[in-house]
Amino acid sequence: MLNSQLGIGVVGHGYWGPNLVRNFAASPVARVVAVADLDPTRLANCARLNPGVTVTNRYEDLLDNPAIEAIVVATPVQSHYDLALAALKAGKHVLVEKPMAPSGDQARRLIDEADRRRLILMVDHTFLYTPAVRKISELVRQGELGKVYYYDSTRVSLGLFQSDVSVLWDLAVHDLSIIDHILDEAPVAVSATGCRHVAGSPENMAHITLFFESPCVAHVNVNWLSPVKVRQAFIGGSKKMIVYDDMEPTEKIKVYDKGITVDGSPEKAHQLRIGYRAGDMWAPHIPTKEALQSEVEHFVDCVRNGAQPLCDGWSALRVIEVLEAASRSVAEHGAPVALGHPAPARHKATA
Amino acid sequence: MLNSQLGIGVVGHGYWGPNLVRNFAASPVARVVAVADLDPTRLANCARLNPGVTVTNRYEDLLDNPAIEAIVVATPVQSHYDLALAALKAGKHVLVEKPMAPSGDQARRLIDEADRRRLILMVDHTFLYTPAVRKISELVRQGELGKVYYYDSTRVSLGLFQSDVSVLWDLAVHDLSIIDHILDEAPVAVSATGCRHVAGSPENMAHITLFFESPCVAHVNVNWLSPVKVRQAFIGGSKKMIVYDDMEPTEKIKVYDKGITVDGSPEKAHQLRIGYRAGDMWAPHIPTKEALQSEVEHFVDCVRNGAQPLCDGWSALRVIEVLEAASRSVAEHGAPVALGHPAPARHKATA
Amino acid sequence: MLNSQLGIGVVGHGYWGPNLVRNFAASPVARVVAVADLDPTRLANCARLNPGVTVTNRYEDLLDNPAIEAIVVATPVQSHYDLALAALKAGKHVLVEKPMAPSGDQARRLIDEADRRRLILMVDHTFLYTPAVRKISELVRQGELGKVYYYDSTRVSLGLFQSDVSVLWDLAVHDLSIIDHILDEAPVAVSATGCRHVAGSPENMAHITLFFESPCVAHVNVNWLSPVKVRQAFIGGSKKMIVYDDMEPTEKIKVYDKGITVDGSPEKAHQLRIGYRAGDMWAPHIPTKEALQSEVEHFVDCVRNGAQPLCDGWSALRVIEVLEAASRSVAEHGAPVALGHPAPARHKATA
Amino acid sequence: MLNSQLGIGVVGHGYWGPNLVRNFAASPVARVVAVADLDPTRLANCARLNPGVTVTNRYEDLLDNPAIEAIVVATPVQSHYDLALAALKAGKHVLVEKPMAPSGDQARRLIDEADRRRLILMVDHTFLYTPAVRKISELVRQGELGKVYYYDSTRVSLGLFQSDVSVLWDLAVHDLSIIDHILDEAPVAVSATGCRHVAGSPENMAHITLFFESPCVAHVNVNWLSPVKVRQAFIGGSKKMIVYDDMEPTEKIKVYDKGITVDGSPEKAHQLRIGYRAGDMWAPHIPTKEALQSEVEHFVDCVRNGAQPLCDGWSALRVIEVLEAASRSVAEHGAPVALGHPAPARHKATA
Repeated sequence: MLNSQLGIGVVGHGYWGPNLVRNFAASPVARVVAVADLDPTRLANCARLNPGVTVTNRYEDLLDNPAIEAIVVATPVQSHYDLALAALKAGKHVLVEKPMAPSGDQARRLIDEADRRRLILMVDHTFLYTPAVRKISELVRQGELGKVYYYDSTRVSLGLFQSDVSVLWDLAVHDLSIIDHILDEAPVAVSATGCRHVAGSPENMAHITLFFESPCVAHVNVNWLSPVKVRQAFIGGSKKMIVYDDMEPTEKIKVYDKGITVDGSPEKAHQLRIGYRAGDMWAPHIPTKEALQSEVEHFVDCVRNGAQPLCDGWSALRVIEVLEAASRSVAEHGAPVALGHPAPARHKATA
Repeated sequence: MLNSQLGIGVVGHGYWGPNLVRNFAASPVARVVAVADLDPTRLANCARLNPGVTVTNRYEDLLDNPAIEAIVVATPVQSHYDLALAALKAGKHVLVEKPMAPSGDQARRLIDEADRRRLILMVDHTFLYTPAVRKISELVRQGELGKVYYYDSTRVSLGLFQSDVSVLWDLAVHDLSIIDHILDEAPVAVSATGCRHVAGSPENMAHITLFFESPCVAHVNVNWLSPVKVRQAFIGGSKKMIVYDDMEPTEKIKVYDKGITVDGSPEKAHQLRIGYRAGDMWAPHIPTKEALQSEVEHFVDCVRNGAQPLCDGWSALRVIEVLEAASRSVAEHGAPVALGHPAPARHKATA
Repeated sequence: MLNSQLGIGVVGHGYWGPNLVRNFAASPVARVVAVADLDPTRLANCARLNPGVTVTNRYEDLLDNPAIEAIVVATPVQSHYDLALAALKAGKHVLVEKPMAPSGDQARRLIDEADRRRLILMVDHTFLYTPAVRKISELVRQGELGKVYYYDSTRVSLGLFQSDVSVLWDLAVHDLSIIDHILDEAPVAVSATGCRHVAGSPENMAHITLFFESPCVAHVNVNWLSPVKVRQAFIGGSKKMIVYDDMEPTEKIKVYDKGITVDGSPEKAHQLRIGYRAGDMWAPHIPTKEALQSEVEHFVDCVRNGAQPLCDGWSALRVIEVLEAASRSVAEHGAPVALGHPAPARHKATA
Repeated sequence: MLNSQLGIGVVGHGYWGPNLVRNFAASPVARVVAVADLDPTRLANCARLNPGVTVTNRYEDLLDNPAIEAIVVATPVQSHYDLALAALKAGKHVLVEKPMAPSGDQARRLIDEADRRRLILMVDHTFLYTPAVRKISELVRQGELGKVYYYDSTRVSLGLFQSDVSVLWDLAVHDLSIIDHILDEAPVAVSATGCRHVAGSPENMAHITLFFESPCVAHVNVNWLSPVKVRQAFIGGSKKMIVYDDMEPTEKIKVYDKGITVDGSPEKAHQLRIGYRAGDMWAPHIPTKEALQSEVEHFVDCVRNGAQPLCDGWSALRVIEVLEAASRSVAEHGAPVALGHPAPARHKATA
């Protein structure tokens, strides 16, 4: 008989792992059983902070421990595939850091493995669990914006240059997962441009356009070399428009009752009369709950009660496919790259 | 013997023409002799506002008038070529609204005509004469920014949808002329994407990337369907970076003493150590002189004293070539379009 | 028989007079008959701008003209009393610049004269006709804020130092008229402090507190020597709170659904439990109509149809009484000055 | 022989105490020997977080411990006097939370005791050690602002209502210590007004004016019931002016090269010509070092090397005297209260 608290094993106690341990430990519905890491200093640190948790430098100890029902993979991306696959094969549910894997092929194999074993495979795109993105998602689904015309994001700041991945995989990944989550169609092609200002380093600046079958368009501007920090997305709809500014301490989302009205038929373009509508602005109250706390609770809910992750393997795969296509387009100076094998019809979940 | 005041004829007294008339009339070094327009109401209005100015519905009256040394063309873009060409053939200097012509071919013929007759051909890219762009240009030329890494602009608002030209020709044109002015190299290729949200209308939203031979990159984001008005450009350099916000009433330019430092050789990328430098911010005082006033004074100075226009025919042509290339790239979903016949080496002027 | 358009005479064509002439001239329900000024240059300028208007340097010409039913006094404050009184005695309705008179005594005599002759006496506190203040007034009257707890305003900028009046009479006057308009009780005492940083000049910086019988309080911070321009008022209520920022181009009013909740009885203060409520923010659309246009139309409506001015003689008198008391308090370093003879019960009008 | 690390005892491990313990523990020049608190839960918590620290519910244990050279008092204000006095009598240096004592009389006795025993008595006005206030202080002392004309601060937010002290003692205390620190003269009188919106509670909103012998003036606006959080001070000088915005993440201080110029003699006020000067704005880089870390290091430096506290007993006393005077003025609706017994000539320290 299983304990009512979900037994958690965490592999990787570097930059992000401690946050995951802390949030699982704080949850009444989960229990951190053991943490594995190859670095003795990190293990000692973990043991000090978490007296009741077993620490080990052998990942196998987690796989073999029957008290552990789910494994959290918080290691560098290159090891995600091997560690997550081993966990699934050991019958453990998996929560893995984003991006799920360095390639779409590996991501697909993890999805297959989880599907076959009927295990939860969830990817830690934390932004999806922020109160702000929850609210945007809710507004879009309720039809508040009408038809979504565009998502246009700027995510720039000074640093931190990564040496192994480009700014696409580091920063654009956030917007791509948000776009995947809030829009109800998948992109069909990508055009992207990028630039490296430090010789020998990956691109530190990029612009990505996603094309859809509908007239909707998405654009993401990312830059590691900006004088000021900007985290802002404009979301335009046929009825209303949103400005989402994550740097605002409280009013992160502003909903504008603004737009255009069109008279006349499209066949007679020269007779089109376009009117402008300017109404109220409204900033819904955004609660301040920590996103990671919501996420770990939802992960337990998925494992225990069959809830569906906001970011399951398929959505994480779609994000990776866009990143791969965008990287190819960057290499070809913006030439469009079709997203040829779209992921299957999505099953959107709401937390 | 010529009057010491430059005799001006203006054709077109619609939206922008009255501003040109007002500024030439206010200048001590110029005199508005006559204004031509086909619309009797506009002519009557012009006569009422400018008692001493002759009004006519015959453009030929301007061409034939020996007291008119220069003609200002402020009509819709489709008529720019014919009117400007006639003026040049009549031996008049020309100041023409932007864009100079609807095609690069026509622009080239105007340049040829002016060159052969040694007449001034200046294009009214007013932004170049704003105190803010003057200051940016000065800072770049003085080397304050070091090597320019990028120019990244957002120019979005709600309206005004144009029926005959896309948002590229309406809004991006401003940034393209600024880029042409402040950078000392010309772009070699363009990738652009765009979207139309009103069936039968031109693109109302676009993103343009300009590639250069150096690692410098320029990007322009334009949109007629934005919930809020943004007029902001980030200009990154190896030494300093600028935020240019034209919506700020006074501190339009902020210069950040921020950037990165690189240790190690490019061959050993994995050993690169990138450091971050954060210093003071500085907002130089920007005078409030009206740009158009500076521009008309400079036009007279070009005609009388051989000064060089900030936007001569060649720079206006380069802007048109980028617009044409960007429009083709939009039609091909971002495929890069080379700028095959670059305009000749530029001769930058400073006001 | 009177013309259906109200015949207007304007005395004073200096800084503000031309705006009044322009707005009356633009109104379909009024007609500017004549303008008087002692300065020939101003008269000539007026004649040029307004071809159909009679100009004169004799004020008596306006008083004697039967086509003039109402006189607008736009001269320096020292002459308001004599000119307005003469107009009333000649049977003309009066719209007078703010402040109505340099003293409460003179203001009372104008009110008496207008009352006895049943003429309209309106004072040009233009802010009351701005769409933003109209909206605030509407929200307060509808009870949206609950009980008003405070009005706290900052109105500071660099310049323009006046030589004849202090910053109280120049800047605070705006807030005092807004406070008088939106609150439904009159202040009972004033404490104010001020400072002069240029020897021999009037106070250039002041802080005023208005006390009411209820726990409501009002405070106004005015300063001619501020590095940046601020025009901001916070209005706190038991249910909601407003931030009114007149420097915002569009969202001038933000309504916050925030506040406190109190449990427990006042007798047991140490047991009070104060809770905090944070809800949505809402920025109602503010139309962009020019305030002066609304005001001149309302003035005509008052004369023709018996509408009541937003700022009649009594409310202007209350503002002057507060200014006089505040000036005395400044001289006594903040000692409270009672408002001993409150103006009679107010009759609030809504445009 | 004393250990080279300063031995610290802390009394009070409630809200602020843990921060002091953490910062002393992190300092290489200090060592937390023991912590006293009456609450067993807090002691247990302290012991868990700080394995090597002795915990006790007997304050005497700290006084008797020869390894403890200095005592930090972080208890509620009512107990400051008794605890600090006992520490001084036991020969310990003292760092006490602000405000130093609930009355000026008690503050004076602590100062006397420390003076007589030649012990350091420092008060934890943490703001003085923030990099922003350090920079402002430096600019003022270097004469960058010229003669200081005013300090005008707004410190408002929603919550936290205190039940035992008014908003003066809770929020204005910060500005009063900053004013005491950066100005080189002490105020001679105070006028203050306040208001309580919750019956039975202390004032939740207040405005304080400080008068000086020079034309300098200081004003502080504090409010627990504001819809938005503001932490902003304007500091005007004869040469430059500062806007200090503590809510800004990076550019907390902006220095404006703006001001007025005066022509003419004060005797002929009507002939005064006041000009306006608008130059550059400059935001010096502000390091991000935690203020409390700087403060504990400086405390050790004071004890060990005879450095002088930024906030010694005398400056803390001056702040308390202003708070007492302001409270009296509030009770009298703004009547000015003289600061009759000014603290002795100050000895300003710089960290």
